[in-house]
Amino acid sequence: MNKKGEFEKFERIAVLGPGMIGASFSRAMKARGLAGHVTGCARNEKILKSSARKGYIDSYETDPASACIDADLVLFATPVETFASLAKEISGSLKKGALVIDAGSVKGSLAYNLEALMPDSVHYVPCHPIAGSEMSGPDASSPDLFEGACCILTPTENTDPGALESVAGLWEGLGARIEKMHPMHHDKVYALVSHFPHLVMFSLVNAVSDIDESALRFTGGGFDDSTRIAKSSPSLWKNIFMMNSANLIDCIDTLVSGLEGMRSALSSGDGKTIKSTLERAQKARIGIKGGR
Amino acid sequence: MNKKGEFEKFERIAVLGPGMIGASFSRAMKARGLAGHVTGCARNEKILKSSARKGYIDSYETDPASACIDADLVLFATPVETFASLAKEISGSLKKGALVIDAGSVKGSLAYNLEALMPDSVHYVPCHPIAGSEMSGPDASSPDLFEGACCILTPTENTDPGALESVAGLWEGLGARIEKMHPMHHDKVYALVSHFPHLVMFSLVNAVSDIDESALRFTGGGFDDSTRIAKSSPSLWKNIFMMNSANLIDCIDTLVSGLEGMRSALSSGDGKTIKSTLERAQKARIGIKGGR
Repeated sequence: MNKKGEFEKFERIAVLGPGMIGASFSRAMKARGLAGHVTGCARNEKILKSSARKGYIDSYETDPASACIDADLVLFATPVETFASLAKEISGSLKKGALVIDAGSVKGSLAYNLEALMPDSVHYVPCHPIAGSEMSGPDASSPDLFEGACCILTPTENTDPGALESVAGLWEGLGARIEKMHPMHHDKVYALVSHFPHLVMFSLVNAVSDIDESALRFTGGGFDDSTRIAKSSPSLWKNIFMMNSANLIDCIDTLVSGLEGMRSALSSGDGKTIKSTLERAQKARIGIKGGR
Repeated sequence: MNKKGEFEKFERIAVLGPGMIGASFSRAMKARGLAGHVTGCARNEKILKSSARKGYIDSYETDPASACIDADLVLFATPVETFASLAKEISGSLKKGALVIDAGSVKGSLAYNLEALMPDSVHYVPCHPIAGSEMSGPDASSPDLFEGACCILTPTENTDPGALESVAGLWEGLGARIEKMHPMHHDKVYALVSHFPHLVMFSLVNAVSDIDESALRFTGGGFDDSTRIAKSSPSLWKNIFMMNSANLIDCIDTLVSGLEGMRSALSSGDGKTIKSTLERAQKARIGIKGGR
């Protein structure tokens, strides 16, 4: 917010990758009068044309460098593995003083890499809006996607404090609440609460299918809710997993050790250990947001 | 349904364990005019009294044998590990020609054990209504709990065909659809679609807490939905796990092997294997009830 209590308006915004997150950002900024003009950039011109027709974006480019010329604000909302090469493509065309943000689910060393690839004349602030679902694409977007959501900012030691505050105000203008954490800590936390649960659910569905695929027709609400995230995009998650592999390997080792403990308690009929293991989990789970 | 197209009515019903499932059964039978009088039986007289006052049951007993005298239909809806001892307690007081059913999540050898414990003058039909949630207790009951639900009947080679049809009609009268499978196959299928997912979710929550419990405040919808079943009753699930341990050990071994495969692909940067693993899971998950 500025001194008049208004949220900062950006005359020209470039959204690289106007999919579910990118198009939601564009629509949210436009709906709140915080965007003058949004240019969407992607490879698929047909989808861009349709998004422009539906008013998700105002115009489009298929060349990232052209999309970013004159932009006061640039959002990276493509899959995380494309960020570094996109940064190289656009760095020469960025306007002096532009703010550059991203919406990647992985931060860690990637935040430092992007920072290093940006010209000194712009400010990059790494962001991770916690929004979205197993769906994807511009038609899954919503102007209210960030309303009530959490947005994690992961400034490095080099992030400009003024730019950080601007970016915090920007997301707050869309209804999000801000958390700040170090990029490396972010990746550990999101391995635990998002990346690893996805990995486990994909693996659980495979284990069940491997043993008896025909059993899947007997699933109930518990199974269906638990494994909903296994409907998510394999190519998106493959890249997230690979970019956060060290944390995920730790998680796998810890879970495997827990499963081996359950296996041994089951084979020796050690009900006491099984019960205390379940009680510990139940207590932790009920502790989340009052057991929601 | 009888020849007049009506569902069979039971004059006197005994519900052993009128908790969420048992009280729902009682309320469902009463609401549809299929029960003359329902006697609830449990140890806790205070809860029984409150359930009778709320109309979930018509009267109550704390002694199972007394509850079953004169009952035309007896439902076991206590935790599965109590079934065998309850069967011994009531077998001497069962009315000639009574139907005995249960609502246990485990069948397998338990179905054979109960069958063996019943006097020849009654008919036992093992049932598993697929209904309920992470909640428990009579106040979580609903007269419509079985409406649209699946009820699995697991007759053995010795189950009386007429009794089997009566019991199928009984559940259909409450709005359930019937599936039939062998008790041993039932336990394999329900290990896969219910017991094992519960075990994995309890274990996942523990793994996450073990690594960094403070991360739990950053969970989103995906994590919360996936781990909702880890809020379930530890004592209930401990017993289910122990009564279906052989199948669960197979499931653990298959999942651990899948997780080790992911671990190795992550550490060697083998994106091709990771992607094909996720694609296989996504395809199987989307195949469930049209991706619901």
